[in-house]
This record gives sequence, structure tokens and C-alpha cells, in this order.
Amino acid sequence: MDLYSGYINKLIEELAALPGIGNKSAQRLAFYLINMPSDRVRHLTKVIMDAKENVKHCKICCTMTDQEICPICANKARNHKQIMVVENSRDQAAYEKTGKYDGVYHVLNGSISPLLGIGPGDINLKELMVRLEGDVDEVIIATNSSLEGETTAMYISKLIKPTGIKVTRIASGVPVGGDLENIDEVTLLRALDGRTEL
Amino acid sequence: MDLYSGYINKLIEELAALPGIGNKSAQRLAFYLINMPSDRVRHLTKVIMDAKENVKHCKICCTMTDQEICPICANKARNHKQIMVVENSRDQAAYEKTGKYDGVYHVLNGSISPLLGIGPGDINLKELMVRLEGDVDEVIIATNSSLEGETTAMYISKLIKPTGIKVTRIASGVPVGGDLENIDEVTLLRALDGRTEL
Repeated sequence: MDLYSGYINKLIEELAALPGIGNKSAQRLAFYLINMPSDRVRHLTKVIMDAKENVKHCKICCTMTDQEICPICANKARNHKQIMVVENSRDQAAYEKTGKYDGVYHVLNGSISPLLGIGPGDINLKELMVRLEGDVDEVIIATNSSLEGETTAMYISKLIKPTGIKVTRIASGVPVGGDLENIDEVTLLRALDGRTEL
Repeated sequence: MDLYSGYINKLIEELAALPGIGNKSAQRLAFYLINMPSDRVRHLTKVIMDAKENVKHCKICCTMTDQEICPICANKARNHKQIMVVENSRDQAAYEKTGKYDGVYHVLNGSISPLLGIGPGDINLKELMVRLEGDVDEVIIATNSSLEGETTAMYISKLIKPTGIKVTRIASGVPVGGDLENIDEVTLLRALDGRTEL
């Protein structure tokens, strides 16, 4: 005999399939949803469908937006000759939050990962190369500092080099406020390699 | 300027309002949902609404079920004279998983919490008292071992005592496999108080 009603089991199963939600959280969420007032549940499902149906990719930088061209690409005050390449819209938002970067972005929507079978053709590289035919001074590669992120950075830099456009990579090292004793060796060595003169 | 499109912000906000989902998880989930194939998103929202619309409370034990009477209450092979009182359907499922309890349950759907303004009238106690008018041998109180759970247990035992029905409380102590050095003092003292002769 199943522990819960079929409807509850199906809901738990669906929720547990989402990223970062384990079986226990899925159970808690399922019961929470079932106990929520009907109109709030209807509202939640509507918000999900609305986002799904209305959010598309910016025709220029491929970030997620509800317009043809995203507000950043449409902003004439920004430096369109400087393009920061990021893996996804969340990484872009992280840099936007700093409020100090006034260039534009290019969102790859992923990173090259031979392990997961994600090749250069699966991320938004073609779109980037088309942009580089225009007037661009610098491409800043801000992919994650992971194996996939580094692989992607290497691949992109090799791809762009022949065009003569300057390609840079964001620095990797000890995080600000980080205690050296708690930081892994790879990061420590990376910080040493990347040392700058004072 | 908002970091994301309005639809995405609204979705993140709704997701972050769910229990156990922080702002970062909500962002990750939102982008995952938007990138999911449309039919899978539609399926997910349908499963949520289906569960919400079809799951109700068992007329006898108040657990969540899609029938009038839940499978456990409808099962004649179980001992209907022994009622285990639990806070919610998940706690009930935890005991069902042991496969060793053959009595029935009563689901309070909460616990008494003066702090949260939840009084005895807000949990399914009336329904329990109605059941006790029938032929019942024992009420096993299996509310959580938290302040609220203990308060609820005390309240229920006082409520039932006058009826002459036997009221018991599940044991509290060191978890099986638990290392004494890692267990908090309250539990250690509770285990000492509850010691049994060998």
C-alpha cells in the first residue's frame, strides 16, 4: 500500500525532480501546497506558466527577457564595445548587482562539458561570433572558475584570437574577506600565479 | 533597473515564499522552470492543481487522502481500538514505513503553539474526542519531541484522562545508532529518566 494518496505521490515525485529539492523537501513542499488556499495555488501555477510563456532570449545577448531586446542591450548609455561572456543570466545578475560594470553581456546559457555531452555547438557561441563582426574592443570571459568554465574560457579565447579582438579573463584567487587557512590549495596557487605588483 | 524580467522576478518571489526555499534556490528553480520544455511545465502545474483539488481529509482520522475514508481507516485487518495521534500525514507515513504498527491513526494537522497563536481549537481534537466515544483501548500520543509537541501531548492526555481510556506517549531518548557524545544534554537526561530494567 502506498503511504500517500496517488495525487500526493505524483506531486512529490514531480517536485523531487526539480534541482536542489530532495525527497524530504518535496514531501514538505507537497503538503504545504495542498494546505495552501486554492487561489494561492492557482496564482502560483499561473505565475509559473506566465514566466514560461513570456520569457524568451534577447536577440542580441541571449539573456532571458520578456522583450525582443533586453534592457541592457537596449541601453545606449552602456559601452557596447565591451562584452562580458557569462554562463547564465544569474551570473549576469551577479555582476549587475555590483553596479560597477557598464559594458554589455553575452549569455552562453551553459558551458562546454564533455562529461555531460555539451559541446561548443550547444551554447550560444555562434551568436557571440556574429556580434564580434561589429565594433568590439574587448571580450571579458567571466565563465565560472570550474573545470567546465575554464574549458569554455579556453575554447572561446582560441576562437576569438584570430579576429584580433582583445580577450581577457576575470581574475581567480582568494575571495575578499576569505581566510587563507580555509581556502583550498588550487585557489591558493591560482592566487599566487595571478599576483600583481603593488 | 530590475535585474530580471518582471515575469522572472514574480516567479522568484513566489517560489521563495515556499517553505525551505531561499532566495538563491528560488532563482535557480525559476530559471530551471523557464528552461524546461513547455509540456513538462504544463504537466507540473497540472499535477499541483490536481493534488490541490482532489486531496481532502479522511472523515475519520483527518489524514490527507483522495477518498472519503483513507485506506488505513478502511482496512478491517487493522486494530481500530488503538489510535496513534500524530501531528501530520508525514509523521504518520514515518510510522507506516516501519511496517510494525497495526493500529490506526489520528492526524492533528498541527500542534498547539501559543507562540504562533495555534490553540487546541485549531487542531483536529474535536474529531479525536468523537472517535473516543466508540470502542477504544489505547491512545498513543506520537507528537514530536519539541516544545509544541510536548505541550500538545500534555493537553491531549489531560483531555482524555477523564474518559478512562489508556493514554501513552512514545519514548524519548537516544536514537538507535546515535553516538552519546554527539547527543544534546536534554535528550541524554530524557534517556536517563526513561531507563528501563534489563
